[in-house]
Amino acid sequence: MTNPTPDRPPVRVELGERSYDIRFFHDQPDAVAAAIRPFCPERALVVTNETVWAARGAAFAAALTRAGVSHEVVAVGDGEKYKTLESASALYDRLIGGHYSRRTCVVAFGGGVIGDLAGFVAATFLRGVDFVQVPTTVVAMVDSAVGGKTGVDHPKGKNLVGAFHQPRLVAVDLAHLSTLDAHNRHGGFAEIIKYGVIRDAAFFSYLEENIGAALALEPGPLEHVVRRSCELKAEVVGADEREGGLRAILNYGHTFAHAIESVGAYAERQFHGQAVAIGMIAAAELARDLGLFGADETEQIRALVERAGLPGRVPPQMPVGDLLDRMKSDKKVAAGRIRFVLPREIGRVEMRDDIPRDAVEKVLRRLGAEG
Amino acid sequence: MTNPTPDRPPVRVELGERSYDIRFFHDQPDAVAAAIRPFCPERALVVTNETVWAARGAAFAAALTRAGVSHEVVAVGDGEKYKTLESASALYDRLIGGHYSRRTCVVAFGGGVIGDLAGFVAATFLRGVDFVQVPTTVVAMVDSAVGGKTGVDHPKGKNLVGAFHQPRLVAVDLAHLSTLDAHNRHGGFAEIIKYGVIRDAAFFSYLEENIGAALALEPGPLEHVVRRSCELKAEVVGADEREGGLRAILNYGHTFAHAIESVGAYAERQFHGQAVAIGMIAAAELARDLGLFGADETEQIRALVERAGLPGRVPPQMPVGDLLDRMKSDKKVAAGRIRFVLPREIGRVEMRDDIPRDAVEKVLRRLGAEG
Repeated sequence: MTNPTPDRPPVRVELGERSYDIRFFHDQPDAVAAAIRPFCPERALVVTNETVWAARGAAFAAALTRAGVSHEVVAVGDGEKYKTLESASALYDRLIGGHYSRRTCVVAFGGGVIGDLAGFVAATFLRGVDFVQVPTTVVAMVDSAVGGKTGVDHPKGKNLVGAFHQPRLVAVDLAHLSTLDAHNRHGGFAEIIKYGVIRDAAFFSYLEENIGAALALEPGPLEHVVRRSCELKAEVVGADEREGGLRAILNYGHTFAHAIESVGAYAERQFHGQAVAIGMIAAAELARDLGLFGADETEQIRALVERAGLPGRVPPQMPVGDLLDRMKSDKKVAAGRIRFVLPREIGRVEMRDDIPRDAVEKVLRRLGAEG
Repeated sequence: MTNPTPDRPPVRVELGERSYDIRFFHDQPDAVAAAIRPFCPERALVVTNETVWAARGAAFAAALTRAGVSHEVVAVGDGEKYKTLESASALYDRLIGGHYSRRTCVVAFGGGVIGDLAGFVAATFLRGVDFVQVPTTVVAMVDSAVGGKTGVDHPKGKNLVGAFHQPRLVAVDLAHLSTLDAHNRHGGFAEIIKYGVIRDAAFFSYLEENIGAALALEPGPLEHVVRRSCELKAEVVGADEREGGLRAILNYGHTFAHAIESVGAYAERQFHGQAVAIGMIAAAELARDLGLFGADETEQIRALVERAGLPGRVPPQMPVGDLLDRMKSDKKVAAGRIRFVLPREIGRVEMRDDIPRDAVEKVLRRLGAEG
């Protein structure tokens, strides 16, 4: 187990000239501001949401000012429903009306909605300006802030308009999690468990030992699980920036999850981690049913998911036919074949697009889908 | 002088994995469609404007169909005022409502407005899909379709929202120019003359001999000047895709031109070439006044511009103070210094940001600015 020390090594995302560091802090707004400063030679625009800013903004803004980072703050509403082209348009108006230049840095201070929206605006304002991520939720720290996927939603689906635009820095201050509600905190741990299953059996074992301490925000275990998740995501993104191959393994649990989110009241982002948890169990059961994955390992995943306080069954009143339909209309479907990421052992997965429909149906019914 | 032959070699834009060909045709819609087909494994969305489509669309659409390229057509209004985020949003609606996938190809069939708008949508739909340019104007063929700059305008300025997104192919059919009005045809030749001044004295000499024939759309001279312009742009873009250095020489004449467009009734794109023509003469005179460029060469540029049917003087009623103010608010201004591309000899320019304001004023007054 690592313990936080004053000089924590960064995690490097290796992408040639677009490489950047993920840096870790424990309640150190001045150190965060100092880390950001080199990327803000002129005025920065901090994009945040009203809730996060009320809880965490004052200390951050004061630290930026002390560090000499000239900045303005724009707070958008809280929630997935503000991740739209209209919100982006309002941010363009602010940047253009305020005469921001090509040397502007856009700083995203918030969760995944803010990071995706601010990143998209940074990708497209003056054909691309610098961008720094300051994630304030677990899922943003271990997933959405790392890897350069940016975008906005469309009334017909999520992330349908967007761009790849890597940040110059991801500044993770773990203290932001102290004001995150328990539901979102637990949800973020679904993505953390995912990294163990897809890529690192030793990390999975570490989680079996320490997930309670990490969930309780004990600094050592918390930093270790966030850092290791970032390392694993950085490895995958460094090998496949634009999801031509390997990066697709990050979708473990997500084929089921997107269907559950789409059919149910899970559409709001705060349920994403919960849907991924169910999806990871479903994918494991599917692999087990097909003889690709062990029964014991399937139970290990289920047990870890449950110990993270995450659901293991499909929510009530979700018809199996609707779930299957949504899977087929996912934007990742190629040539009508649903693609699943299936575990072969803890720490190793494979992509499959040859799974019989009735095997999927059987798993969904067993996990509580209706019909 | 080259003559068109059935197998014309393409011009290659060398950008590593983003490299692509510019191919040349003479009234060969079937050959154009065959060239496009490999980039359209699924349905293509052809983006065009109503005027271009009425004049040139039927033959193109029929050829696509004969080539087996499944496609739909969306025509937006004609003119710079449609190059907006709202137009982009309507195209997203069409793509999303029509269930277009990641294997969609967006085909831009038109001039610079259509290429920039369709390119931006291709850059941002599902975080980037393939894109083919079929330019139908001189300026699109030699300038805007090549190099990957895409974007939309904002009420406060042009191209303020955009992305770099290289096409997979630029298919230039010179026959499209036969229905282009004379004003736009002449305007496009300003960009052609520009390439001679900034980078190729021999090409400048060729233009001195043959510009009349090229303007009259004689196939040999026309293909040569369009091809050579594309080669020169491809060289510059290949060396500096994102305008970190060399690419800025393409702005020769444009510092003055943007100010003239911004102050006057020249805001509509159909006057861009005319504004660039004035700007090239102004930059040459400025360089001459400062002892950087010869008086004879300045007159050579003026004479060639005039033989292309382009203006050499600032339009009436443009106050010199307003023009200078606009230059200072250009998005390319760094640290308050206006950057000029000044000729040193025909075929060679340099960037200067140390030009005294009174030297610029003097040139503007001499060319007809008021006050």
